[in-house]
Amino acid sequence: MAEAKQLSGAGLRGQVAGKTALSTVGKSGSGLTYRGYDVQDLAEHCQFEEVAYLILKGKLPNQAELDGYKARLKSLRGLPQALKEVLERIPKEAHPMDVMRTGCSMLGNLETEVDFSQQGDAADRLLAVFPSIICYWYRYSHDGVQIDVETDDDSIGAHFLHMLRGEKPNALHEQVMNVSLILYAEHEFNASTFTARVCASTLSDIHSCITGAIGSLRGPLHGGANEAAMDMIEKFRDADHAEQEMMGMLERKEKIMGFGHAIYSVSDPRNAIIKQWSEKLAADVGDTVLYPVSVRCEEVMWREKKLFCNADFFHASAYHFMGIPTKLFTPIFVMSRLTGWAAHVFEQRADNRIIRPSAEYTGEAPRKVEPISAR
Amino acid sequence: MAEAKQLSGAGLRGQVAGKTALSTVGKSGSGLTYRGYDVQDLAEHCQFEEVAYLILKGKLPNQAELDGYKARLKSLRGLPQALKEVLERIPKEAHPMDVMRTGCSMLGNLETEVDFSQQGDAADRLLAVFPSIICYWYRYSHDGVQIDVETDDDSIGAHFLHMLRGEKPNALHEQVMNVSLILYAEHEFNASTFTARVCASTLSDIHSCITGAIGSLRGPLHGGANEAAMDMIEKFRDADHAEQEMMGMLERKEKIMGFGHAIYSVSDPRNAIIKQWSEKLAADVGDTVLYPVSVRCEEVMWREKKLFCNADFFHASAYHFMGIPTKLFTPIFVMSRLTGWAAHVFEQRADNRIIRPSAEYTGEAPRKVEPISAR
Ligand SMILES: CC(C)(COP(=O)(O)OP(=O)(O)OC[C@H]1O[C@@H](n2cnc3c(N)ncnc32)[C@H](O)[C@@H]1OP(=O)(O)O)[C@@H](O)C(=O)NCCC(=O)NCCS
Ligand SMILES: CC(C)(COP(=O)(O)OP(=O)(O)OC[C@H]1O[C@@H](n2cnc3c(N)ncnc32)[C@H](O)[C@@H]1OP(=O)(O)O)[C@@H](O)C(=O)NCCC(=O)NCCS
Repeated sequence: MAEAKQLSGAGLRGQVAGKTALSTVGKSGSGLTYRGYDVQDLAEHCQFEEVAYLILKGKLPNQAELDGYKARLKSLRGLPQALKEVLERIPKEAHPMDVMRTGCSMLGNLETEVDFSQQGDAADRLLAVFPSIICYWYRYSHDGVQIDVETDDDSIGAHFLHMLRGEKPNALHEQVMNVSLILYAEHEFNASTFTARVCASTLSDIHSCITGAIGSLRGPLHGGANEAAMDMIEKFRDADHAEQEMMGMLERKEKIMGFGHAIYSVSDPRNAIIKQWSEKLAADVGDTVLYPVSVRCEEVMWREKKLFCNADFFHASAYHFMGIPTKLFTPIFVMSRLTGWAAHVFEQRADNRIIRPSAEYTGEAPRKVEPISAR
Repeated sequence: MAEAKQLSGAGLRGQVAGKTALSTVGKSGSGLTYRGYDVQDLAEHCQFEEVAYLILKGKLPNQAELDGYKARLKSLRGLPQALKEVLERIPKEAHPMDVMRTGCSMLGNLETEVDFSQQGDAADRLLAVFPSIICYWYRYSHDGVQIDVETDDDSIGAHFLHMLRGEKPNALHEQVMNVSLILYAEHEFNASTFTARVCASTLSDIHSCITGAIGSLRGPLHGGANEAAMDMIEKFRDADHAEQEMMGMLERKEKIMGFGHAIYSVSDPRNAIIKQWSEKLAADVGDTVLYPVSVRCEEVMWREKKLFCNADFFHASAYHFMGIPTKLFTPIFVMSRLTGWAAHVFEQRADNRIIRPSAEYTGEAPRKVEPISAR
């Protein structure tokens, strides 16, 4: 179980910025709950679509509701022609999070939320279409093909892997995607969610809120950490090499991505879950390097700094074992966190006051404008 | 002069969320200063490009610096071909703020900020190119023409009006644009700026920060208020009709856009300035309705509710008198506020901690996942 850190200082750490019924982070008894359910319980017993339903609509679905929801999401996978044409104009070298951000923003032009009564439909649409957006761009820019995004895959995770590789994934991979999407779905007032809520507080539209959230998630201190972790671990030849390099980084006081957390102080409950799946995938692909390297990194960081793996660290190796290109790691986070973001937008709108904090002024004292000739 | 409100309650009102040297809002002696200069002093004696230089680079330029800066901005007005093609795919019915948001996001794919050392150049580029983005889309979608955005107009305001109308503006209109852009340039931790800072705090790129800020500014409680004010006042036949309608709205407890402020309690210092220019423009076009209607609205709101015009209210009539379509009002705000947003991004990066507040939990108590068959 994760314990709460002692909170203080900058970055609004520990300051209450609003109310939520969506999740708890670092409360005693459980490190993470979604609407009261422990994330571990959900990851063990649910499909991601059930959890999305829970977060967006307030309760776990029964079988008929789940079937209906999955059928609905399936029907929403298609991309408007204008959006395809935009994605085709984004170069191969672009940052995939910029592609997600632009895809979401463009969709806002084509399917604008003109009334808040449309918010639920808009969220479902984004949930269904984000995998299409990223895979359509990726396959077009990298392989020169215009893929069919309207597949009949049963789950969002399988839909994504199918489009990415051009073939249906096996059961293990579909299951890991499912767990991963559940783990990333919601996390209270993290920076990207808070971005969405600030935007929502001006009564702006949902595409603006989600576009802004994607931009925040892109940062290496936030969602970008899983990619940064991968970039690091793939440079290590073996566990001893990893230890040696980590010691050097710590000595140089470098930040090590995939470790530490703004709220948790001793562990991130999502780590044990994804770590176990990473281990299974390592066995599946016969890995003898990346998984042991990752475990050693974890040991060294705890021994040296009492820093623990957050949700991102073992996601790096897990995704890698499934053959997912590193630069698509954070977009997967988007596909999942969309649920939390959208639900926070609904919540903000339901009891809104514009979020407008104050600042401590550290600048110049009052002064007069001098004529330009005298400057 | 504006006085500070008594602050408390939700929306982080009155809570210090960071430091800034860029501006003061509602401090005694002046309602608004940029780096120590009173906004009235700047609006009277400066060009917008001088103020942009001040905000982005820290000091008012001398003549050589200003000339160099304006020449540089002029050279950055062009649109990449791929961005033009994206803008051409955005329908006429789109919300122009969605166009701005998408244009900014797309530019992030084409001219990605890969290192923070590029932040100053990226900001200058956005400052120069925003008028091109909105006018290219507007003229293409509404008039079917692919305009040349690389004009030789001396100022950003003239560049915008020239592209919009296909002819150079007169001196009065250029001057009003100049003042308007100065008034909107910077306003401490307002919602859109705070959005940019939250995004910056994850160490994301500047296009993500600005894209997110545009999304927040779009909201009717924030930048969208100038358009909402216009929609209201143009329905009034004359001042008496305005008074009668306003009284009805107040009775029905409707929010009246262009009035009130999160920080100011008795007046917004920007109002007196833009009001005076609106009056000049009214005389120039021979208006006998809209300006008197606006003045009456101001009187009624003060008399009935002690609510005062904020920066947006007289901007509505001023822009209207210059023949600017209502739906382009908030994009002009973007062209200006970009300076404040970017400078806040620089500031956040220079002394960063990820912005991650907490929430008060109001949801379900811990519970177990029931098997789907039992739900
Ligand atoms: C997540 C994170 C942004 C939390 O930030 P925070 O709440 O501001 O954390 P703190 O600044 O309180 O961290 C406390 C100390 O541990 C250090 N620390 C935290 N995470 C660290 C890391 N991953 N590597 C090295 N040192 C770290 C900090 O530098 C700080 O040291 P200092 O007091 O000497 O400056 C931070 O841990 C981090 O940057 N981690 C790496 C990025 C990452 O994995 N992000 C994904 C989060 S899910
Ligand atoms: C700017 C604004 C969002 C500030 O929000 P805020 O700090 O939360 O303001 P407050 O809620 O403290 O306002 C105090 C009271 O005045 C009322 N009020 C504020 N602005 C009002 C307006 N424009 N019309 C009618 N009533 C208004 C509020 O409803 C509130 O009444 P209540 O206490 O009975 O709920 C708010 O004044 C507003 O919505 N104005 C209209 C939109 C606008 O012009 N925005 C541009 C701002 S530059």
